Amino acid sequence: MQLVFLSGGSGKRLWPLSNNARSKQFLPLLEAPDGSMESMVQRVVRQAKEAELNAQITFATNAAQRDSIINQLGTDVDIVAEPQRRDTFPAIALAASYLYFTKSCSDDEIVVVMPSDPCTEVGYFLTVARMADEVRHNAADLVLMGITPTYPSEKYGYIVPEKTTNTAGSMPVSRFTEKPTVEVAQDLLHEGALWNGGVFAFKLGYMMNIVRKYIQAASFEETYARYTEFPKISFDYEVAEKATSVAVVPFTGKWKDLGTWNTLTEELSHRTIGNVLLGDANDNTHVINELEVPVFCDGMKDTVVACSPDGILVCAKDKSETIKKYVDSLTLRPMYEERRWGTYKVLSDVQYEDGTRALTKTIKLRAGKNISYQIHHHRDEVWTIVDGEGIFVLNGESRKVHRGDVCCIRKEQYHAIKAITDLVFVEVQIGTPLVEEDIERFDWNW
Amino acid sequence: MQLVFLSGGSGKRLWPLSNNARSKQFLPLLEAPDGSMESMVQRVVRQAKEAELNAQITFATNAAQRDSIINQLGTDVDIVAEPQRRDTFPAIALAASYLYFTKSCSDDEIVVVMPSDPCTEVGYFLTVARMADEVRHNAADLVLMGITPTYPSEKYGYIVPEKTTNTAGSMPVSRFTEKPTVEVAQDLLHEGALWNGGVFAFKLGYMMNIVRKYIQAASFEETYARYTEFPKISFDYEVAEKATSVAVVPFTGKWKDLGTWNTLTEELSHRTIGNVLLGDANDNTHVINELEVPVFCDGMKDTVVACSPDGILVCAKDKSETIKKYVDSLTLRPMYEERRWGTYKVLSDVQYEDGTRALTKTIKLRAGKNISYQIHHHRDEVWTIVDGEGIFVLNGESRKVHRGDVCCIRKEQYHAIKAITDLVFVEVQIGTPLVEEDIERFDWNW
Repeated sequence: MQLVFLSGGSGKRLWPLSNNARSKQFLPLLEAPDGSMESMVQRVVRQAKEAELNAQITFATNAAQRDSIINQLGTDVDIVAEPQRRDTFPAIALAASYLYFTKSCSDDEIVVVMPSDPCTEVGYFLTVARMADEVRHNAADLVLMGITPTYPSEKYGYIVPEKTTNTAGSMPVSRFTEKPTVEVAQDLLHEGALWNGGVFAFKLGYMMNIVRKYIQAASFEETYARYTEFPKISFDYEVAEKATSVAVVPFTGKWKDLGTWNTLTEELSHRTIGNVLLGDANDNTHVINELEVPVFCDGMKDTVVACSPDGILVCAKDKSETIKKYVDSLTLRPMYEERRWGTYKVLSDVQYEDGTRALTKTIKLRAGKNISYQIHHHRDEVWTIVDGEGIFVLNGESRKVHRGDVCCIRKEQYHAIKAITDLVFVEVQIGTPLVEEDIERFDWNW
Repeated sequence: MQLVFLSGGSGKRLWPLSNNARSKQFLPLLEAPDGSMESMVQRVVRQAKEAELNAQITFATNAAQRDSIINQLGTDVDIVAEPQRRDTFPAIALAASYLYFTKSCSDDEIVVVMPSDPCTEVGYFLTVARMADEVRHNAADLVLMGITPTYPSEKYGYIVPEKTTNTAGSMPVSRFTEKPTVEVAQDLLHEGALWNGGVFAFKLGYMMNIVRKYIQAASFEETYARYTEFPKISFDYEVAEKATSVAVVPFTGKWKDLGTWNTLTEELSHRTIGNVLLGDANDNTHVINELEVPVFCDGMKDTVVACSPDGILVCAKDKSETIKKYVDSLTLRPMYEERRWGTYKVLSDVQYEDGTRALTKTIKLRAGKNISYQIHHHRDEVWTIVDGEGIFVLNGESRKVHRGDVCCIRKEQYHAIKAITDLVFVEVQIGTPLVEEDIERFDWNW
């Protein structure tokens, strides 16, 4: 069985903790059973393993999230990153091609596609197992999870089942309805309709037949290269609504979308995360602080405060939906990023009168990891090693560096660094323009 | 005429903008007539000049505030810094000795002592001029300003005048009452009592006679050296309440103590200062942001948000009095300071597992200023010049430095830097302990 987690989204509504490089599913805000903090993707992968689904896991994602997935989940999971953002059908089609060609899965392999960010419980994964069983026993070509609705929401898609029941308790699907009005949703609830949870089970061969309608390829690489030939359309429209043999397995239990600060804070175990002091007069107020400096909060009610290197949010919880429309004007560049080699945080970014910028970062490189051999055309860099040991390469010469050492890198100089132990350094970039794209990468044989 | 401004206080109630090194009177939050921002001390000195008092100005302060005063007021004002914090009587006694010995003022010189942080208007300074006239015409030895009360406050001292009036409108003082209950304050208002505004006018000789009761010195330096011989007592108790010839001049007009966020924000011209975006649903909310990163605020009512390198405050305005009791547990070290050579800001302060700390700062040195020739015993420093030009001295060798240059300073190495143009550099300190005291200073002939 193959589990495919869909991981996308820009996470604007959880600004300033989420940004283009760190979507909501990577925020380490949830409490794991051992008391440590985990992100949504870490939680959902942990829960899938605990449910003993015996599934191999693949993340269908985009290039911007690849490093976060590697950093948070290690090499336990496979990653298929689309070459450009399209929609859920192309993303799932690419993942199916990866399973078929690269992982050599058979046409009979059961594939379950699901979101990477549901806030849910073990029963959800037992439902996934039942969906897989229904596919295995040919109850339908496509089996969906139907969430038992708790209110007539306008936000979700609805699945209307027929009144009959298949072998293991799945129901044939009568029709789909997308985002109805509250009145229509009310009627749908009376009909026994379920929310579409975005979980789809099918045999790989079924999906590959649909893939071949658009791209008849002989390899994953070819499919990847021709990715733009897939239509920009959702899996629901392209596959689920066109399917002639489709069934639904209901799930009744905890299922929430932690997409706004209002819903996310309901799931937090503690009122504060990070360096925070609360006065005596706060009520239903959550403070999340990823900065070093302290936050003090008093006299607040139904408020969320969130601080990160990207900015500071102070918002009434019932207004937290509104962040999305403002965040584009707040976002300059990501001030914190997870990369496959570790993390960086911007400490200061100043432009001087003549247009030259100075950008100061703290960079943490995990033991054994390296930054690729590269040159910059428009900036000098000065690295001051503040913790750990590493190997620094400049113009082909390598030397050991440790705390207190300084690496001066001028424009056009070839350089790289590898961490022997966990390595921390302060980087000052000076130049114009200071952009990520001003990197030319070369090979270095460590 | 000599104006002596008293400048002290720790400014805890305006955390995180004020700290031990930057009291409230130095916060550049008020709007000057030309639209630029000014601090309370800049405003009060500007107003004193505009009132054409033709006075020379001396600040009686402590060592921690000396650099802020120089930085904000330049060399227009004299500074007398007490060697240790005692109380207002010793501070005024030291300032009187400075006027007498160092500035060679005569016994007949009129001295007016006043706080450096009143939020007031031109009439206040006209009242100061009338007080000086009363002293000049010998209406009394000591003339105080009495603020016409607006409510029966428990916070202030009261001056009860006699029902008679002197020549120019001053009234002899009948008695003083410190911080009465509301009921007593109510009775005092009926008696025509005035608030004690902390403004005192006297002839220098009068004050020097009191000084000599404690220290008979031949010079300012001797007085300074024997400073601890002055009793720790307020000027009100030691001088005003013991005086036999004391009068009061009333002032009716704007007079506020901007000592809490609640009162300070009432005086701000704009809802926001700095990089701030307000949503549509805020009410009576002020946001002051001294950080580079943006603050977004929505759905807040009667709230103050203040962000500085020291920390972040989110507080209901009517709770802003409570900050004081929490701030000691929030304060580690000042993260921003004004020095006579410029300013510094802490960007990051991290302690590693072995106890070694790394402190990253941005330092701005004003053109012509220098950091003294010094060594450190416990830390290395790396300076990366990001803007401007200067002269760097290392172990007796000097060289020009400019943008992109790096200065590596090891423990026990003699070093100094002087700005030719305004100079900005990023400093990384590495060592343990990282304390201001780890400086040994030497002379360098620039």
